[in-house]
Amino acid sequence: MVKRRKTYWVGFDLGGTKMMATVFSGSFKVLGSAKAKTPVNDGAKAVLARIRETILEALQEAKVPAQALAGIGVGCPGVLDLDEGVILEAPNLGWKRVPLRRLLAGWFHCRVVLANDVDAGTYGEYRFGAGRGARTLLGVFPGTGIGGGCVYAGKLLRGKTGSAMEIGHIPIREHGRLCGCGKRGCLEALAGRLAISAEVAQAAFRGEAPYVSANAGSDLKKLKSGLLAKAIKAGDAAVERIVRDAMHLLGRAIGGVVNLLAPDVVVLGGGLVEAMPRLALEEVKAGVKETAMASFLPPLKIREADLGDEATTLGAAALAADDAER
Amino acid sequence: MVKRRKTYWVGFDLGGTKMMATVFSGSFKVLGSAKAKTPVNDGAKAVLARIRETILEALQEAKVPAQALAGIGVGCPGVLDLDEGVILEAPNLGWKRVPLRRLLAGWFHCRVVLANDVDAGTYGEYRFGAGRGARTLLGVFPGTGIGGGCVYAGKLLRGKTGSAMEIGHIPIREHGRLCGCGKRGCLEALAGRLAISAEVAQAAFRGEAPYVSANAGSDLKKLKSGLLAKAIKAGDAAVERIVRDAMHLLGRAIGGVVNLLAPDVVVLGGGLVEAMPRLALEEVKAGVKETAMASFLPPLKIREADLGDEATTLGAAALAADDAER
Repeated sequence: MVKRRKTYWVGFDLGGTKMMATVFSGSFKVLGSAKAKTPVNDGAKAVLARIRETILEALQEAKVPAQALAGIGVGCPGVLDLDEGVILEAPNLGWKRVPLRRLLAGWFHCRVVLANDVDAGTYGEYRFGAGRGARTLLGVFPGTGIGGGCVYAGKLLRGKTGSAMEIGHIPIREHGRLCGCGKRGCLEALAGRLAISAEVAQAAFRGEAPYVSANAGSDLKKLKSGLLAKAIKAGDAAVERIVRDAMHLLGRAIGGVVNLLAPDVVVLGGGLVEAMPRLALEEVKAGVKETAMASFLPPLKIREADLGDEATTLGAAALAADDAER
Repeated sequence: MVKRRKTYWVGFDLGGTKMMATVFSGSFKVLGSAKAKTPVNDGAKAVLARIRETILEALQEAKVPAQALAGIGVGCPGVLDLDEGVILEAPNLGWKRVPLRRLLAGWFHCRVVLANDVDAGTYGEYRFGAGRGARTLLGVFPGTGIGGGCVYAGKLLRGKTGSAMEIGHIPIREHGRLCGCGKRGCLEALAGRLAISAEVAQAAFRGEAPYVSANAGSDLKKLKSGLLAKAIKAGDAAVERIVRDAMHLLGRAIGGVVNLLAPDVVVLGGGLVEAMPRLALEEVKAGVKETAMASFLPPLKIREADLGDEATTLGAAALAADDAER
């Protein structure tokens, strides 16, 4: 009897609005992938069914039979129990205590590893992207919120049971703006995409952002990173000022983290950076210079992320493969 | 011929005003120690000679011959090259590029390891004190400045060539007070002992701190932690308010670091905490609660340091012993 070798990996990116599965070879070449919307409003069962279907679809596209899967790595939002493989609480999925690892392992009969989505993305950039070779890599992903991850001496920094590096919730301003976490003055509440959009909406309402007014109005849902980038290109000076100030503030906060972790590489990714990489890097670099200590600056490189959407799937798959080697 | 076994360790704490050497057994029992003033104004040669003498004195007190030394660990101030064992720059010693490891190894013919002084103290508390058993230990030592260290999965977090965890230089306030590092608004410039003393001096000048006025005046040099504690006990309400506000701010900053590192234990030590442990812990705990995310709080313990002055010598000696095992 010939023993079928299990040599393929799936990386899965589970988001509140969409999900993505990618099948990788043993050397992490992309063989196939599939995307789907996350049917959050239909409940946990519907989302779980969609996850299963999306993985099966990606396997089909890759022409890899499910039995040849060595493992699945999943980048998840929310608070996780990494050791037990349980999503303890994910507000943007409406989930509480979902044992995702056990479920996936039951369906696909392979090793399953859960990771925080931003951690997975940071690890992806560390292994295959802009963070290769770093001793200490700080990944920062400003989007609707601001996510952070850190690879230190080859491994993701983590907490006792869950992930760490909640850079979006560094306190920046006493009595500052209200944050989604319930506290005031978090970095994310001042410099995240939602905070930026809220300021831009006010500018639009006041008639100070003509491109935004004409093309999106003042509804935060429509004021996404891509539109903000277009408004800046079209000459909406108020929008440029708001985005620059936010990225500058982000840079100042990153400088503080540099003083703690002394990273040699900071990788910036996420929606805002992808939409306007030059502006974002320029302001972040300037902000970092204001707050990072002189002795930490010479070895520090600040770079744009390389892998885009595939960072999380690649990182998650690599984490599953690492786990198998242990 | 009988081979003499090298089983003793020296831990050395090199400060800008005083130095201390302690001789430890192989199981880190204190066998003897010696202290001396650091003759900073007499130049590097005088300080180096004093280091050698102090170690010899400690050995004599411990009745351990220098030939039986397995190694020396030194907790140093300033910017270090840990791998090369060089003090690159130590402003409070007036030193630049002093190859301390090579010098000590030449005098004592044993292994020598340099560490940042606060890192050594944190490691001491991790191995032998209030941080035993922690998965992630954050050590915070508010004194003239505010030092920090972190033990993660059994090892000190460090930078590529030097130490990390400069918690005193987290940016807290844009356009805040000028810091010794040349930047504005660092935690240390707002909540360190020097910042506290400067506020207390103003209160004394205005006649709002009668105990301070009567016993010390408004010279910052005289407004040390011990005196501040006495003033609070004597009823100087303005002094209590200033110290409480500073410790509260320190707590808020520590809460931000908790969101990054998810420590299970925070150990507080240093002059200010030793002088008024109850007040300091109370305010720091309240500040942490304001800024740390809810999911990081349940596993978190905030404790007073156990080892006092001996934390740095113990930690430095243990680091030298660890290095020998590698």
